[in-house]
Amino acid sequence: MTNITKDTLTEAVLATIADEADPRFRKIMISLIKHMHGFVKEVDLSQDEWRTAIEFLYQTGEKTTRKRNEFILLSDTLGVTSLIDLLSGQATEGATESSVLGPFYVEGAPIIDNGGDLIGQNPGDPGVVHGRVMTADGTEIPGALLDIWQNASNGLYSVEDPDQDDNNLRCRLHADADGAYSLTTIRPMPYTVPDDGPAGVMLHAMGRHPWRPAHIHFKVTAKGYQDLVTELYPDDDRYIDEDAVFGVRDSLSVTFARNESEDDARSYGLNAPFFDLKYDFILRPA
Amino acid sequence: MTNITKDTLTEAVLATIADEADPRFRKIMISLIKHMHGFVKEVDLSQDEWRTAIEFLYQTGEKTTRKRNEFILLSDTLGVTSLIDLLSGQATEGATESSVLGPFYVEGAPIIDNGGDLIGQNPGDPGVVHGRVMTADGTEIPGALLDIWQNASNGLYSVEDPDQDDNNLRCRLHADADGAYSLTTIRPMPYTVPDDGPAGVMLHAMGRHPWRPAHIHFKVTAKGYQDLVTELYPDDDRYIDEDAVFGVRDSLSVTFARNESEDDARSYGLNAPFFDLKYDFILRPA
Repeated sequence: MTNITKDTLTEAVLATIADEADPRFRKIMISLIKHMHGFVKEVDLSQDEWRTAIEFLYQTGEKTTRKRNEFILLSDTLGVTSLIDLLSGQATEGATESSVLGPFYVEGAPIIDNGGDLIGQNPGDPGVVHGRVMTADGTEIPGALLDIWQNASNGLYSVEDPDQDDNNLRCRLHADADGAYSLTTIRPMPYTVPDDGPAGVMLHAMGRHPWRPAHIHFKVTAKGYQDLVTELYPDDDRYIDEDAVFGVRDSLSVTFARNESEDDARSYGLNAPFFDLKYDFILRPA
Repeated sequence: MTNITKDTLTEAVLATIADEADPRFRKIMISLIKHMHGFVKEVDLSQDEWRTAIEFLYQTGEKTTRKRNEFILLSDTLGVTSLIDLLSGQATEGATESSVLGPFYVEGAPIIDNGGDLIGQNPGDPGVVHGRVMTADGTEIPGALLDIWQNASNGLYSVEDPDQDDNNLRCRLHADADGAYSLTTIRPMPYTVPDDGPAGVMLHAMGRHPWRPAHIHFKVTAKGYQDLVTELYPDDDRYIDEDAVFGVRDSLSVTFARNESEDDARSYGLNAPFFDLKYDFILRPA
């Protein structure tokens, strides 16, 4: 480590990684160090800018708790979380695209009957979500478990709203022997990611807003198939093309169709008109 | 932001930065986002590895206080701090190289007479540090202020050791009208950066140790010249070629010569043999 200059330092740092280090960790650290140094050199980061960055990280740590992780929020809003989701996405042609689990998932939601209702006393636009769980070649998958959660008409998930029951607008249900599933719910709402911390400061400086388009979360599991975690977005949402966390995929942007049929409404226990979202989930073999 | 795939996402994130954003901030964010995404793609970072990274950052935030900043420690041990120091370093040929200020600097150290003593009751190897403050062409700079601090023979700086007086082994002194300075002190000791937090976990996984070679810190200021912050390292230190924070520069690795002259020793108020470090600081015009 003699002759350290701005041109030799990166190699000197890389040379400190022991040959005996875990090979995967070694590979990750080499790439990380090269990119960190590459970034600093590319922009010729000044001492003052470095201090600003350190203070930003300090504030990020200060704001972070187990319930509110500002590091995840930075990863989300810089597209890193979404990129990792895309990289790990299914290779199987025709399978449903995944999207991020997000911070509002809670295990163990109550199991309701297939065809059941999530609306309860919630205000909002009622409708039905229905379809099948199947393979890429159209074979129905019987008895898949769907875990479903969304926010209320005030834009809040039950876990962040003391005025909602803990299990409001979240449930699990089993698809039937033909893979068919159905439930009634309200239309989800766009909402903002928390912007009262460092990530909000960053978004503001970038000239960005903190809005996410409305969406319903799904986690679909069936024996013999890979778990699918995804979100469905109404394609007419105001923020469909400017999701603050880059979670929207073209194939997950779907039509919440207006159904005016009184007969259809009656069959779902709704009044016409109502939104009618039909979506088939395509799983990959395990 | 339609058609988001792993190949289009980075451009989609970059496109969110408003044209009206501060140009320098814009440039920094573009480079940061490209390098973050480039890193993730280069190593094909998995969901599990992302969770590990997020937990590492969480722990880093947890460990960080205003007195112990683990983010700075990561920057130091990954060579980023040193790289920024090198990039901002003097362009003036022949000027003394800078090195990092470090976490142990405290403003307002007591002013002692030029030729004064820092040894006091400290155990250790005594010696003298002396030389001149001058310009690159050899012109003496009169009356420069030297701020000097180092650790004790137990490896600790006074600010981290309740058993030391707050001002132990730290002082300021004015060079004379010819730019000459001199003081007696003890030889500094190698020591470890804090390795009981996330940075220590990282160093261990890389197969690295947390040791820094011994050094004396200097901040040299004179009217009409740029401030110089630097460190001098004994070139026979065990860790001279493997500084955990990459602070050593060839030109700052200096000989703590053994002086056996009884006359010289007497002139400094020391006993022979003693270490004799002669070093001239070359400042850049402001």
